[in-house]
Amino acid sequence: MIASACDPRIERSRSAIHSATIEELAEVGYGAMTIESIARRAGVGKATIYRHWRGKLDLVASALETIKEDVVAPTEGTVRARVTTVLEALAVHLADSDLARCLPALISAAQYDDGVREFQRGFSRERRGLLIALLDEGIASGELSADLDPELAAAVLAGPLFYSRLLSHEPFPPGRVAQVVALVLG
Amino acid sequence: MIASACDPRIERSRSAIHSATIEELAEVGYGAMTIESIARRAGVGKATIYRHWRGKLDLVASALETIKEDVVAPTEGTVRARVTTVLEALAVHLADSDLARCLPALISAAQYDDGVREFQRGFSRERRGLLIALLDEGIASGELSADLDPELAAAVLAGPLFYSRLLSHEPFPPGRVAQVVALVLG
Repeated sequence: MIASACDPRIERSRSAIHSATIEELAEVGYGAMTIESIARRAGVGKATIYRHWRGKLDLVASALETIKEDVVAPTEGTVRARVTTVLEALAVHLADSDLARCLPALISAAQYDDGVREFQRGFSRERRGLLIALLDEGIASGELSADLDPELAAAVLAGPLFYSRLLSHEPFPPGRVAQVVALVLG
Repeated sequence: MIASACDPRIERSRSAIHSATIEELAEVGYGAMTIESIARRAGVGKATIYRHWRGKLDLVASALETIKEDVVAPTEGTVRARVTTVLEALAVHLADSDLARCLPALISAAQYDDGVREFQRGFSRERRGLLIALLDEGIASGELSADLDPELAAAVLAGPLFYSRLLSHEPFPPGRVAQVVALVLG
């Protein structure tokens, strides 16, 4: 994003452009969407978009920033209970959110676009970091085994949720998250 | 696929069309590829393609059939060792195979194309079935806990491999598969 603004008209047009970007991404994919198709959907001119963003990836990154919910890990309770809460929220999110609808398009674009790949890698790393920090805390307090590899365990815990969404095309039932946590963390 | 043939020239052209389909899918994605672009890449006319396949999905399904390797679970050794072998092969496969290169495009197309979604769902179910059968065997023999849910455990075991490939964009190291199996199956 190049410029920020306080003018309410500019804010409204930025918000329309962000929404149009998310919709285009979910419906036609990264490769097929263009600044032109986004501008048309948002009802603005291409020049308006180029005034605020450098190009497609910059615009996508900025649009995804606006819809990514802040995930805050709970600070009370056992680490197992808190990991369960975080994963239940992820399951709900993957079943029905704008970000989840954009995920297949991002995964596909990451195959051939270095910028998208780096963006998605950073985004996943950030999200995974939350889980890893919780697992680290559990190991430090003795609740979890000192042998546990937090990085590996985080991928094993989150993996089945993404597997269901992306490979089985069925949302992972939030009610089964506790079973995954019990299986992995004992 | 409509017709099969024994004529070696027809076989050669079928094989060129299959290769072109896989390459197009991996490089431009399902949405952007057309019978025309596949024909051009394969050096055949569109009519040749329509003589053998009903359309894009039929052609993709038939091309993927030709590259999907038969995964045969080993029959000797403990179930834990055999699950490890199957997952190590999956990790190698996901790191570098034509099928893995097509996976992001299929995941993206499955979002908006019912045919691709059903195809991919069936394909994943079939592959997962192998792991589930092994886990069932382990439960029956008493090697694994009777409390284990084979369907859930299969997703937890395979999940991190797909997570690494699709979200972190890093191949899952086959050498770490044994750690996943130990974490999940004890």
